[in-house]
Amino acid sequence: MTTALGARKWWGWGFEQDGVDPAAYEGLRASLLHLLGDARPRRIEPVDPASVRIPSPRFGLPPAIAEFASDDRLDRLSHAYGKAYVDVMRAVAGDVPNPPDWVAYPRDEAEVAAVIAFAESESIGLIPYGGGSSVVGGIEPPPCHEADRPGVITLDLRRLDRVLHVDRSSRLAEVEAGIFGPALEASLRPAGLTLRYFPQSFEFSTVGGWIATRGSGHFASGATRIDPLVAGVRLMTPRGILDTSELGLSGAGPSAVGPILGSEGSLGVVTRAWLRVRPEPTHRASTVVQFADEAAAIEAVRALGQSGMEPADCRLLSPLEAALTGVGDGRSAELLLGIESHDRPVDHDLARAIEICAAFAGRTAPAPARGDASDTDAAASRWRRWFVEAPYLRDRLALDELVVETFETATTWHRFAELHAATLRATQRAIVEACGQGFVTWRLNNVYPDGVAPYYTVLALGTAGREIAQWTAIKAAATEAIVANGGTITHHHAVGKTHRPWFERERGEVAVAALRGMKAALDPAGIMNPGTLLA
Amino acid sequence: MTTALGARKWWGWGFEQDGVDPAAYEGLRASLLHLLGDARPRRIEPVDPASVRIPSPRFGLPPAIAEFASDDRLDRLSHAYGKAYVDVMRAVAGDVPNPPDWVAYPRDEAEVAAVIAFAESESIGLIPYGGGSSVVGGIEPPPCHEADRPGVITLDLRRLDRVLHVDRSSRLAEVEAGIFGPALEASLRPAGLTLRYFPQSFEFSTVGGWIATRGSGHFASGATRIDPLVAGVRLMTPRGILDTSELGLSGAGPSAVGPILGSEGSLGVVTRAWLRVRPEPTHRASTVVQFADEAAAIEAVRALGQSGMEPADCRLLSPLEAALTGVGDGRSAELLLGIESHDRPVDHDLARAIEICAAFAGRTAPAPARGDASDTDAAASRWRRWFVEAPYLRDRLALDELVVETFETATTWHRFAELHAATLRATQRAIVEACGQGFVTWRLNNVYPDGVAPYYTVLALGTAGREIAQWTAIKAAATEAIVANGGTITHHHAVGKTHRPWFERERGEVAVAALRGMKAALDPAGIMNPGTLLA
Repeated sequence: MTTALGARKWWGWGFEQDGVDPAAYEGLRASLLHLLGDARPRRIEPVDPASVRIPSPRFGLPPAIAEFASDDRLDRLSHAYGKAYVDVMRAVAGDVPNPPDWVAYPRDEAEVAAVIAFAESESIGLIPYGGGSSVVGGIEPPPCHEADRPGVITLDLRRLDRVLHVDRSSRLAEVEAGIFGPALEASLRPAGLTLRYFPQSFEFSTVGGWIATRGSGHFASGATRIDPLVAGVRLMTPRGILDTSELGLSGAGPSAVGPILGSEGSLGVVTRAWLRVRPEPTHRASTVVQFADEAAAIEAVRALGQSGMEPADCRLLSPLEAALTGVGDGRSAELLLGIESHDRPVDHDLARAIEICAAFAGRTAPAPARGDASDTDAAASRWRRWFVEAPYLRDRLALDELVVETFETATTWHRFAELHAATLRATQRAIVEACGQGFVTWRLNNVYPDGVAPYYTVLALGTAGREIAQWTAIKAAATEAIVANGGTITHHHAVGKTHRPWFERERGEVAVAALRGMKAALDPAGIMNPGTLLA
Repeated sequence: MTTALGARKWWGWGFEQDGVDPAAYEGLRASLLHLLGDARPRRIEPVDPASVRIPSPRFGLPPAIAEFASDDRLDRLSHAYGKAYVDVMRAVAGDVPNPPDWVAYPRDEAEVAAVIAFAESESIGLIPYGGGSSVVGGIEPPPCHEADRPGVITLDLRRLDRVLHVDRSSRLAEVEAGIFGPALEASLRPAGLTLRYFPQSFEFSTVGGWIATRGSGHFASGATRIDPLVAGVRLMTPRGILDTSELGLSGAGPSAVGPILGSEGSLGVVTRAWLRVRPEPTHRASTVVQFADEAAAIEAVRALGQSGMEPADCRLLSPLEAALTGVGDGRSAELLLGIESHDRPVDHDLARAIEICAAFAGRTAPAPARGDASDTDAAASRWRRWFVEAPYLRDRLALDELVVETFETATTWHRFAELHAATLRATQRAIVEACGQGFVTWRLNNVYPDGVAPYYTVLALGTAGREIAQWTAIKAAATEAIVANGGTITHHHAVGKTHRPWFERERGEVAVAALRGMKAALDPAGIMNPGTLLA
């Protein structure tokens, strides 16, 4: 079988045509190069995929599986990496030594079962694949030369993309796991419902991927992660089907869904889920609050996170991040604050939120006359646009030879100030050492009563041929600072292969043994996503 | 070691002196007997514990453990059963063939570790024990004659009862797992904080027990279960300590706390937890809404559960349950509705909630003049008092030879009406068959966007010597109706031994194998709470 990948880029984010306004991009690029004190017109061109040397498939497939599988060069190349900066840089350089041997596109669960059975019988590694947006090596095959197995099949679930049933009374949607964000929302819209889960990868990620990685959506507080939105899951494992049904309210034994959320394909293939959907919000109120003092701004965010109000939006942008994203002028930290409800007006809540901010010297822009688009609305919509375009911009900047990547963590409020200062310090120092010029911006991305998830963006001058080493050094320094100050290795980017050593340290030997025990019961031959999450 | 159990009953709930007003009890008893068409003045007297025949301990303890363990008759008797109706009836009859051989009261984790090591080396079963309030056989030793092991130690954790640290900034409390509800709240109060987790067992249950069983507190919606209140857990297993730390916000891998919540002692001993605490609510608004039509009332509750408002109280009592608890006159279903916040007024939310109820023909009592105690307040406080006293009342009624017990489930809204009707029908039929006279009342105990947890109370005439068989027949009929109509075997009473066969059916073979895999990794000798949760 040969698959047309349509107009998706094989080496980076989204479609070949990214829809980013050329003039706007040039403006951003110029500002960045100005900030970085460098104006060299460098440009990396992605190699022609036809010229990339890749190994031949190490094994053949039985005809029944070959019918829905492909060893087409572009299929294999485009499933070799996720979408991290290091993935893009390796791909555009044609450095793809370990593509999957085959990419299978099953059309139903029977075909998934056939692939699992074949892989198990031959000890072939099996990588469940949704949208391929992992930034931690989660869907990358293990290196050929290290493998103690005869090869790897990537199981691309894009054809399992149906909404099977919408239970309006219980506000539950039963969906196949290969459905992408936009298709899911389009299917729910006629019923007046939405999952309201918008991760940055929304356009190119799937329900199964969100579940497997415990992804995080656009809510800044409350139901930030996919976890509470999942009432049930169907997981196909080498030992059979684990189907929790939609009965997520059971209190019998440990949560049945729990161990599957975040399992990253290591236990089996998520083929179906019951999702908690809701009506579109009909009441919204939002504003932007400016803080001259960053420490006071952070305290205001803590107060909001502990208020019980659970604002949908509560993102604090550092002055520089606000400037780069068009939200502010770089002289103050900007808090994007939004409250929503499908049931009742939220003006009282927004007024209370503004009052909380005012206690920390946060200043809101005056409310606009009714019907006018305010500066506030404009700032929020600039942010949203930037948020959606960011992966596209990242690719463009990477080709302009900037080292550009993000990392994130979460910690308790008690530890945050020290962690934050240490992380910024270590990252900035590593940037200077590795790149000479560059900087790190930050935002508070998710807010909880007990803690906060900061998100950092690095922008630095790359050196031709050394970019991956440069980023790796920066990431290592940042990670050490995070871990040394009580942060987790990830709030919502999953473990994959990149974070595994730190995950093992953080989780501890006994807890990792517990996970391994569960894996041994469901995947005794160890074929499921080898090397991801668990060694 | 000999332990003074103080004034706790060895055979039933709470203290010997139960504090139930004698006149009020006589009134309740008289109404019930009137309803049941029977006025026989029967009375069961609990046997003298000194007369109960129990086997001698089957093994001795090393001196280092004997120092904090007891084989005192009363210690062993009082740890033989939980607090289900069948437990009370067996105990008062002196039918206690399988008490634990020893009860250990460790003073620190080193002593817990010593008991675990000794038990593993001798293949002795080890039962972690908090307040002993299980109603599903969760802390009951397996029958001696069935055991393939030389005996059982019950590990009573009451001495691990310290609040170790309160992190006010992150609103996290690090506590030892043996602390009881009232002591926990007393320790948090000086900091102006509360866990606000009030299960019916509050007075006689512990943090560790809440975690091990995924207990449910007093919130009707929102954070109803202990799960979201637990940021971290420390679990001592035969393979070492699993310590998640307080970093509950990590998104790395599956939730570390998840598999421990609901593990019922089958993986290890919970010795410590990090709990998400909050300020006392300073704003409260509540009312009682009356519905002449039960079906409309249930729809109103669904609308409230799906409003996003998450009322702290949202309990719909059936007309009969309302009458028996003093909340109503038995002619309408009564909805106890309460909203609270520690941050801001909630009057707007309550007004909206009342508006929702009005759309389903729900009528509220008129608001009282400021400063007056309203009928509403009185009804709510009668409910609270009944809720707290219920386990005491249950014991008294049981001794007056009524079959009196509760059961509960949860299901999606879509399935609820049929499940509810079938459950009431099957239960009522079984009551008549087993007891001749009796009835079942109900309430909606917990409310979610996707479903609801109904709670049923059976009151029927017992027949001397046949009470346990009578209840067992009623429970079996109710359970079959629940399971056949898509309900879970339990929303918050755990699995224990009583629910295990249904749990295995509900969870399915593959999911049970996954749990067994985890247990095998942490407890390879299978000493932890044998027969509870997993066979």
